[in-house]
Amino acid sequence: MSKRRNNRKRTRRQPASPLADKPFRQLTNPLPPVELLRAEQIERLHDASMHILEEIGIDFLDEETLALWQAAGARVDHQSQHVWFERELITSLVAKAPAEFTLFARNPAHSIQVGGNHINFATVGAAPYYSDMEAGRRPGTLADFRRMVKLAQICTPIHMVEGLLVEPQDVPIPLRHLEKWISQLTLSDKTHTTAAHGREVATDYVNMAAIAFGGLETIQKRPVLASNVNANSPLRFDQRMLGALIVYSRYGQPAIITPFILAGAMSPITMAAAIAQQNAEALAGIALTQLVNPGCPVIYGGFTTNIDMQSGSPAFGTPEGAQALLCGAQLARYYGLPYRGSGGLNNSKLPDAQAAYETQMSLWPAVLAHANIILHSAGWLEAGLVCSLEKFILDVEGLAVMHHFLAGLDISDETLALDSIAEVGPGGHHFGTAHTMARYRDAFYMPIVSDRQNYDAWQENGALDAAQRAHRLAKQLLDTYERPPLDPAINEALQSYVSRKKEDYQTETRDKQ
Amino acid sequence: MSKRRNNRKRTRRQPASPLADKPFRQLTNPLPPVELLRAEQIERLHDASMHILEEIGIDFLDEETLALWQAAGARVDHQSQHVWFERELITSLVAKAPAEFTLFARNPAHSIQVGGNHINFATVGAAPYYSDMEAGRRPGTLADFRRMVKLAQICTPIHMVEGLLVEPQDVPIPLRHLEKWISQLTLSDKTHTTAAHGREVATDYVNMAAIAFGGLETIQKRPVLASNVNANSPLRFDQRMLGALIVYSRYGQPAIITPFILAGAMSPITMAAAIAQQNAEALAGIALTQLVNPGCPVIYGGFTTNIDMQSGSPAFGTPEGAQALLCGAQLARYYGLPYRGSGGLNNSKLPDAQAAYETQMSLWPAVLAHANIILHSAGWLEAGLVCSLEKFILDVEGLAVMHHFLAGLDISDETLALDSIAEVGPGGHHFGTAHTMARYRDAFYMPIVSDRQNYDAWQENGALDAAQRAHRLAKQLLDTYERPPLDPAINEALQSYVSRKKEDYQTETRDKQ
Repeated sequence: MSKRRNNRKRTRRQPASPLADKPFRQLTNPLPPVELLRAEQIERLHDASMHILEEIGIDFLDEETLALWQAAGARVDHQSQHVWFERELITSLVAKAPAEFTLFARNPAHSIQVGGNHINFATVGAAPYYSDMEAGRRPGTLADFRRMVKLAQICTPIHMVEGLLVEPQDVPIPLRHLEKWISQLTLSDKTHTTAAHGREVATDYVNMAAIAFGGLETIQKRPVLASNVNANSPLRFDQRMLGALIVYSRYGQPAIITPFILAGAMSPITMAAAIAQQNAEALAGIALTQLVNPGCPVIYGGFTTNIDMQSGSPAFGTPEGAQALLCGAQLARYYGLPYRGSGGLNNSKLPDAQAAYETQMSLWPAVLAHANIILHSAGWLEAGLVCSLEKFILDVEGLAVMHHFLAGLDISDETLALDSIAEVGPGGHHFGTAHTMARYRDAFYMPIVSDRQNYDAWQENGALDAAQRAHRLAKQLLDTYERPPLDPAINEALQSYVSRKKEDYQTETRDKQ
Repeated sequence: MSKRRNNRKRTRRQPASPLADKPFRQLTNPLPPVELLRAEQIERLHDASMHILEEIGIDFLDEETLALWQAAGARVDHQSQHVWFERELITSLVAKAPAEFTLFARNPAHSIQVGGNHINFATVGAAPYYSDMEAGRRPGTLADFRRMVKLAQICTPIHMVEGLLVEPQDVPIPLRHLEKWISQLTLSDKTHTTAAHGREVATDYVNMAAIAFGGLETIQKRPVLASNVNANSPLRFDQRMLGALIVYSRYGQPAIITPFILAGAMSPITMAAAIAQQNAEALAGIALTQLVNPGCPVIYGGFTTNIDMQSGSPAFGTPEGAQALLCGAQLARYYGLPYRGSGGLNNSKLPDAQAAYETQMSLWPAVLAHANIILHSAGWLEAGLVCSLEKFILDVEGLAVMHHFLAGLDISDETLALDSIAEVGPGGHHFGTAHTMARYRDAFYMPIVSDRQNYDAWQENGALDAAQRAHRLAKQLLDTYERPPLDPAINEALQSYVSRKKEDYQTETRDKQ
């Protein structure tokens, strides 16, 4: 009822969304991937990684995993939960993973290709705090999470909703993944990432995905969620991550195996070492997915950046991070694997110039590298601690610009317009030509939040900076939100799955008291 | 005396400059140039340009130029000051220009290579207004000009001082170039661009350069200034630009032939046409330099972007501009010419997020394109109307980051540090290892203005945004300025040249009254 009223209001009063001329679309990078390393340097890094896997080894803090490795012929020390690998074991397992696959969305038009030169932008993930200009900076809530999912659904340049978007700290921890996942599945029909928080949580994610996407068998053939699985670098995977990796892989859902390396802390301070170690850890995790389920889709994840040696803080949007991103992509291609990078990383506390230039310092390399999934593309602030409403919108502008840039140029008789050049001749102008009049509405990229007025007009309109305009636009866009259609039976089944789990939790909590 | 006191103070109180670990250096881009167009698309654009030159032709509003073209065999209509060219005439002249040359600085360590994969960053140019947080936005003054030259001299990531930096509107127009040039020559020992404001002004620039650099014959062999020569697009060069082009070329100083194209206004609205027209205009200007002085260094300039069809304003830092920049570089390479692009372009009224992301949207393509001279790399705001002190510093950070990024990675036994990885093992950290301790001071890029503190520390330090910190840093850096050494005889000769010109001007002005 109130929804219908909103719709009527919108028809009367809302201006056209600046995203209206930017429909959702698959994105590819037509340029060859930018390669920072020469072939022999890649071989050198590969060799170093193989040395790490063979001679130094990796901790797997999970008995099921150790048993899998032992059965596969790796050398396992159960006491220290440590594994050493022959390089052939790793490379032969990694070779089973597909180079490209489709990740399916509830809306088929929103399904994405992962691999090759396909580029997909995902929202920020895993921010404990939320901020906007009115609310300030505060612990995230479920309302914040749901608002950001809606915004991700609205913003057409975004391909994926990161399931850890902003942490709903007002929800008890054991219920958070349920509230997040049902919000994602019901408020958005784009593709999703989910959490890798142990066997139980991963099983809930898979079960609910099965409800939403036509059953377990269907999703085993047609993956519907990707999950970031971090190595606890250096050289360790913990039980929580491994449990999720095993569940997701068993059900054919791609893990994004991402070593969490801040060079100088979790790896040696030299970037070559950081990248070699990243590669060893990523390959060990990727090989494990193929041990669980040969041929299962999996993604090579790179997140390596450096520590700031002055403050001891992680440093984001750095030139070292940009280098690591490009090198990681080259290694992923070397092994024939899809690659995940990051866009939008920065250390700024505000959606200011620093936030923007550091963001571009991770977005550009990610796009140039052919990173197939670019996490944290929108909304990341303050070293990832904050999901910012305004930054989200500013980033969406950056992503829309990148979409337009990568669409390339049409060189044809029509676009070369030699007759128009002759018609106007020297010293004239092209404002009123037939060629211009036929094309002026959609010839150029139209910004969503960037201001191109002259100084006086800008002043008359309130002299707002980009972040202030982004705040205003976020609210306008949220006002246009419409829930994507969902079979009521599926919706009900999802709701009852979550209700049952909530009841179990309440019973458990009561029993403990 | 007061200078010596300042020096003493500095020794006592000044903190080390954050630029101290970033010495001036030649910059090359080790990556292959990014090419947006396929070979046959380049041929298509070339053909379209040749058609424009042959069939449509170009205005040259200067009798000396028309005589030169006529003598060379072009078809000239003196009545309309219009010229048509056989394509062989253009291509054979263009082929005489060198692919690479050295532009000499007063300090030999600051000389630059122009061509190949050399990248050189120049300051903003031609801003009528100056702004900083204290002064606000106001017409530029000579004091502003001189302050910005000093800052360009201090900021090591900057290679070139753009001679139109900010317009000293408090100086009578006929004297401005004299005040600017003597300021550039005495306050900085880096390379320079100068103005193309007719024969008389260009002659002053050349005469003063001869004084500063060892005589006319010397600078004819060793060029010391580059000048942006704009086509008055569409298809026209005016007398002021042509007069300067002829003087500079005659004395061996490179012109940067830059069509001024905002697609939709000075060219058809389709980017293919804009680029084809840019190419025709640029080649006509370049050919003219070779007619004046065969073998003279010259630079292909690209500045093509689009009009914003909503506001009618020029739009900067756009995806269309990025595409044009890459295509222009491909065309320049096709003809074996050095290329000029732009970094730092944007439409923002403030040094905010928009200013930063639009800036990166022109800096990245310029670097990827192998633009050999990147004008407007620091300080540009508000569609080029404003030279901003804070934006200058924020841009210098971006340029320093790019320097670091392009330095690439060292992959060696030492940097792979396999022993360190083994030593720390799984789950440990690398903070205190010998490998880290030996390298932590200079392992990573250290920001000059970006903040990497945690939220609490940032708040305790005043919760400043990037622009506020940039303002503070600009003042600190200016406090460290030292005038580069200059032979007192040269200084005196320059001063007396300018004084004489000033006296002439005063006499003329009095005579007119």
